[in-house]
Amino acid sequence: MAKEVDHIGILVSNLEEATKLYQDCFGATIEKTETIPERGVKATVLTLTRGTKLELLEPLPDSNMARILEKRGEGLHHITFEVDDVDGELSRLSELGVELIDKKPRPGLEGMVAFIHPKSVRGVLVELCQKV
Amino acid sequence: MAKEVDHIGILVSNLEEATKLYQDCFGATIEKTETIPERGVKATVLTLTRGTKLELLEPLPDSNMARILEKRGEGLHHITFEVDDVDGELSRLSELGVELIDKKPRPGLEGMVAFIHPKSVRGVLVELCQKV
Repeated sequence: MAKEVDHIGILVSNLEEATKLYQDCFGATIEKTETIPERGVKATVLTLTRGTKLELLEPLPDSNMARILEKRGEGLHHITFEVDDVDGELSRLSELGVELIDKKPRPGLEGMVAFIHPKSVRGVLVELCQKV
Repeated sequence: MAKEVDHIGILVSNLEEATKLYQDCFGATIEKTETIPERGVKATVLTLTRGTKLELLEPLPDSNMARILEKRGEGLHHITFEVDDVDGELSRLSELGVELIDKKPRPGLEGMVAFIHPKSVRGVLVELCQKV
């Protein structure tokens, strides 16, 4: 079961400009920036004073994420629930009939992660994350 | 400045079905359900073990939100930042050139709230909330 919302993924066309916006407007601070070729993005994790983080995602050229940005524009992309056992949760959700994008956890920015298909979560792309 | 993400607003076509999904799949529990005619929605606030809440929003018939659901389908709708002084934040953001939907705070589910226009936040609908 989900413990809390770890972060909210937000698709942006320009990471630098978007980061400055969240800093200036909402007081967010940069936790880290990493390029993740296998997800087709450069990502900056932003923190507020406490609680849920924001993950700004700028697509790499010619990636699947670049096509999503072109089609849908900038905006909210996914929410990530922190769980204790992502492998166990995938099994449990699969038994409930939930369609998974990742059948097995894979390394993410801060632990093992797996995505659930939005068609099983009423249009919301959900990521599960088990911190290491 | 934002203290934390208070909740994530999620547009759904059927509140009862969506609530059951978040209960069964992610262990969310119901905090409250209210009809908010001025926002054109029936809303259920869900909590996880800790942290950010989820606000499921089912449009009322013939509302503006019903038209948004018809056009965009179910999915992530807005994020809400908790702030200490929503009036002061609106002034500050306005001076930064940010376009506001609500020029003044108005009563929300749990305090005074105001929405910021997504075109000033790179496609993300942001709500500010000052708890009472």
